[in-house]
Amino acid sequence: MRRIYLDHNATAPLRPEARAAMLEVMDLPGNPSSVHAEGRAAKGMMERARRDIAEALGAQDAEIVFTSGATEAAALACAGRNLRASDIEHDAVRAWCPPLLDTDAQGGVTVDDPAQSTLQRANSETGILQDLPQDLAVSDMTQAFGKIPLDFTASGARMALISAHKLGGPKGIGALILRRGQDIPVQIKGGGQEMGRRSGTENLIGIAGFAAAAQAARRDLDAGRWEEIKELRKILENTLAAETKTTIFIGKEANRLPNTLCFATPGWKGEAQVIQMDLAGFAVSAGSACSSGKVKASSVLRAMGLDEATASCAIRVSLGLETTKTEVLQFAQAWLEKEKKFRARAA
Amino acid sequence: MRRIYLDHNATAPLRPEARAAMLEVMDLPGNPSSVHAEGRAAKGMMERARRDIAEALGAQDAEIVFTSGATEAAALACAGRNLRASDIEHDAVRAWCPPLLDTDAQGGVTVDDPAQSTLQRANSETGILQDLPQDLAVSDMTQAFGKIPLDFTASGARMALISAHKLGGPKGIGALILRRGQDIPVQIKGGGQEMGRRSGTENLIGIAGFAAAAQAARRDLDAGRWEEIKELRKILENTLAAETKTTIFIGKEANRLPNTLCFATPGWKGEAQVIQMDLAGFAVSAGSACSSGKVKASSVLRAMGLDEATASCAIRVSLGLETTKTEVLQFAQAWLEKEKKFRARAA
Repeated sequence: MRRIYLDHNATAPLRPEARAAMLEVMDLPGNPSSVHAEGRAAKGMMERARRDIAEALGAQDAEIVFTSGATEAAALACAGRNLRASDIEHDAVRAWCPPLLDTDAQGGVTVDDPAQSTLQRANSETGILQDLPQDLAVSDMTQAFGKIPLDFTASGARMALISAHKLGGPKGIGALILRRGQDIPVQIKGGGQEMGRRSGTENLIGIAGFAAAAQAARRDLDAGRWEEIKELRKILENTLAAETKTTIFIGKEANRLPNTLCFATPGWKGEAQVIQMDLAGFAVSAGSACSSGKVKASSVLRAMGLDEATASCAIRVSLGLETTKTEVLQFAQAWLEKEKKFRARAA
Repeated sequence: MRRIYLDHNATAPLRPEARAAMLEVMDLPGNPSSVHAEGRAAKGMMERARRDIAEALGAQDAEIVFTSGATEAAALACAGRNLRASDIEHDAVRAWCPPLLDTDAQGGVTVDDPAQSTLQRANSETGILQDLPQDLAVSDMTQAFGKIPLDFTASGARMALISAHKLGGPKGIGALILRRGQDIPVQIKGGGQEMGRRSGTENLIGIAGFAAAAQAARRDLDAGRWEEIKELRKILENTLAAETKTTIFIGKEANRLPNTLCFATPGWKGEAQVIQMDLAGFAVSAGSACSSGKVKASSVLRAMGLDEATASCAIRVSLGLETTKTEVLQFAQAWLEKEKKFRARAA
């Protein structure tokens, strides 16, 4: 049976453009810190990649510090700063930030003191988007980058976190974006790479894949490909809503990522749904991938006011560029069959 | 003109086995933290890779925490511990450790209090090897791994730092090895990956390449390939020594990595030699790659008692598995020609 992958917010399949770029860099023998021709070629490739990522993000005037992913970027941007956060932030941000910001029932977060706060651009579980206030200290743009148009310079954020694998680049490479004039304490010291901000020989193959994926993502956005995905998400949402009675569609009225659908069916555990759908050939998730191994209610949904029992009965379906209408309808049919059985058992 | 790459201690070309393994993993769509089939496949691959690396390093009984490289592993192992180090350690280790250990003229380091000290297994600039004392807190095994037989369990070290790209894996992936019972403070928090020790979605493609390269390196070691490299190094050293008068061969009497030759020619700056050899088609380096952009005398050679002027006149030639006798002789001829010109100018 052919599998249908609907968990793109956990990680997206590698784009062919990223694969090709990575293959090309595999033939570059040099270390970007070396002064000889091989080193300069590696360095040149890396700096072109940096410009390509900056361009895709509207961050031409900013500085880009490559990291091993958004999680490391979050540690660089947030550790020791006591920035205010809401409970809907990713664990990588929440780990460093007291949860002092309130979230409303629509998933919106109110920020009183932007310079001392962090706010994501898009939520990984619900897809709900936030408007960023001017001079926001840090914004996690990981889920938004590549799925909606972003312009870092105009965003209001002083720093942003991004990751390659959410937009079709490889896992294990990301970046911290810094508005010029912003600085961070160094956490990984040594050879002085990344202008001394983050030492260690650079993940050259990953960086090449990141840049190619970011450029391809930008082209797909410009070509309206995510509008098509949004239509598929609507079809999915409407098909499910028409046949269910108790299922709650999270953020239905909110501005959301075009690909993300989160819905809770009270009494039917999200983990159970994920396993049943997995056995039926569909990859979806309950909560964000990082914490999906743990069985606990989503803190994102709890922050939006859902009770713990309901919050533990949510799943996330996140579509990707290769998702088809047929796949979406197949998923809806399979899930609705199981939902009927669940209701029969519960009755 | 075909280039001749003799800077393998800066970074080694990607092994074909690593390339093949990375290509294979590019087709795995899942996130190792996801519970569905795609996630479990990614996780399975990662855990096989972990076992392969452990086996290659004789670390089957140890724990392996994947990092973005040896530099990050050094920060994890050393930050905040005030471990004693000598000046011959890599900058990534020296950044965290007071330089309290003495180095003798042969490059040997005396460790009085192993539990509070860090000592490299092999030096990147000179290739000089160290015997590790029992219960050494941390050992940087980055340059040794893949070039000489290593057995972490028998090594005496409680923790070790390793990196993929020095043995023909990709740049940007490495690991901290922990003897069971050892622990570290967490620096990158979030999703709880790597048993909570190092969060962030794992660099799956890099990990696959690391494991394949480590296994291939082990096979090459077992097959005696590095004995052949050692012969080439001897040929190079003897050829140069026969024709030069003032050149000092560093660590000539010491136990060294089979592939590394470091030599200083007083009055002729290392940086100038590197640039002249680069123009002649050879990639070599002055000092370690990370710091080669900076023009300063090697702290490694200074620690061995060379004066600053002499230490600034050293270069490192580091051979690799694809290096041929012809290449070594071509290098020797080209370098000796330039050395004659240097002497003529100096006279």
